[in-house]
Amino acid sequence: MIHLSLIGIGTGNPDHITLAGVRALREAELILLPRKGEARSDLVDLRRLLCRQLLDETALTRVVEFDLPRRDGRDDYLGAVDDWHAAIAETWHEQMTQRLPEGGRVAMLIWGDPSLYDSSLRIAARLKGPEQDSGMALEVEVVPGITSLQVLTAEHRIPLNVLAEPVQITTGRRLRERGWPGDAASVAVMLDAGGAFQTLAPEGLHIWWGAYLGMDKQCLIDGPLAEVGPAIVERRAALRERHGWIMDVYLLARTPLLPGPIE
Amino acid sequence: MIHLSLIGIGTGNPDHITLAGVRALREAELILLPRKGEARSDLVDLRRLLCRQLLDETALTRVVEFDLPRRDGRDDYLGAVDDWHAAIAETWHEQMTQRLPEGGRVAMLIWGDPSLYDSSLRIAARLKGPEQDSGMALEVEVVPGITSLQVLTAEHRIPLNVLAEPVQITTGRRLRERGWPGDAASVAVMLDAGGAFQTLAPEGLHIWWGAYLGMDKQCLIDGPLAEVGPAIVERRAALRERHGWIMDVYLLARTPLLPGPIE
Repeated sequence: MIHLSLIGIGTGNPDHITLAGVRALREAELILLPRKGEARSDLVDLRRLLCRQLLDETALTRVVEFDLPRRDGRDDYLGAVDDWHAAIAETWHEQMTQRLPEGGRVAMLIWGDPSLYDSSLRIAARLKGPEQDSGMALEVEVVPGITSLQVLTAEHRIPLNVLAEPVQITTGRRLRERGWPGDAASVAVMLDAGGAFQTLAPEGLHIWWGAYLGMDKQCLIDGPLAEVGPAIVERRAALRERHGWIMDVYLLARTPLLPGPIE
Repeated sequence: MIHLSLIGIGTGNPDHITLAGVRALREAELILLPRKGEARSDLVDLRRLLCRQLLDETALTRVVEFDLPRRDGRDDYLGAVDDWHAAIAETWHEQMTQRLPEGGRVAMLIWGDPSLYDSSLRIAARLKGPEQDSGMALEVEVVPGITSLQVLTAEHRIPLNVLAEPVQITTGRRLRERGWPGDAASVAVMLDAGGAFQTLAPEGLHIWWGAYLGMDKQCLIDGPLAEVGPAIVERRAALRERHGWIMDVYLLARTPLLPGPIE
């Protein structure tokens, strides 16, 4: 039996991990640290740093890095993701069964929180699913972590929702395809490949944007979308060029999030 | 100058606090612990417990409990909330200026995360706003915490969003008024006074419900809404009767959140 802890570690700031996360990490017999390719090596570095800060020398020997397969870039997005998740599940399976043939406690450090636009739970479900002949005995535990949206709102010192109003969390892709979701007073956008907010009529919209949230190179911009939208697009391109990768999220609202003047 | 740290402490499980939260709590010269009335005394107890676990004897003397004014029950919900926030802001102001007349670091423990259906940021904004003649010099810091939605999804071992789809976070009130938000594949409901999901046509909907999340008395129910909806309403009423109060949240989805059979 493998006990797999998916530990949300927040974004960039090692102090975002919870006491429950620290405990689950220390109890693990195997800590899997997947690498997604060279461009985002900062992200692997941060997880290494977190392990070094929280584990003693003996526990550090339990950390194992391995490379993930890459998603193919074909047009059929959901199909490509499906194949990719199946390939990742195989890699996980191989790592776990080879390194813990008798079973045991495995931890994986999940960027943000395993519940929000993260596929760890979907991949873990495949290890148990009928498509996997191995029929792995797997127990999954989720340790919640701070999402990039929470760091965004914390750093801007704003709430996510307008008072008593709904908030929609969506992707750049959906925002481009469908525009403003009718029922929401504020909209949080994740996984935007860049500037999906430009497809909206900017009048009356305010934006709070953040990149590399929680890291030393964190960058925040906010203001009326009509005014700061172009500056965000420009800054994003420059930062991506400089660092080789970028992760950013933003919140849009039609009405003030706080009473009084917006700082 | 008052430096106010709004520290998200998660829900019920003291280990949900982050390392950043622990540090902000320990650095505070004054820790304000507002009481909202007797019925929910468990919630004050949990914050007291958290302070006792994380602070030494000297730091514990910095914890000050005080009673919050109550919101009047008039029909004009937003008007009543507005008056209530103004009254709470006055109470905060009084506590801070009387206890730290020269200024200093104040911490408040916020249930869940200060960004989501919480009014601390709005109340803090009033302390600086023009309506407050005092013109308080106030610097606000937000330390993100785990929300009840994250504990809900962690305990059910599910993601919040359907793969690549938007998720709407809304209130029981809105769900009753407006029904299913058109653009969302999954809907998270907070602040429901009870059974707002009963206003939806249950066919094809699945629900994951949780009460007292993270606490010893945590209760989870999930299943097709048509089957388990009535059981949730019944259980909720019984638990509320037994404990004198209840806090619960739930997630609804039209399509599976995970590949394979839902456990």
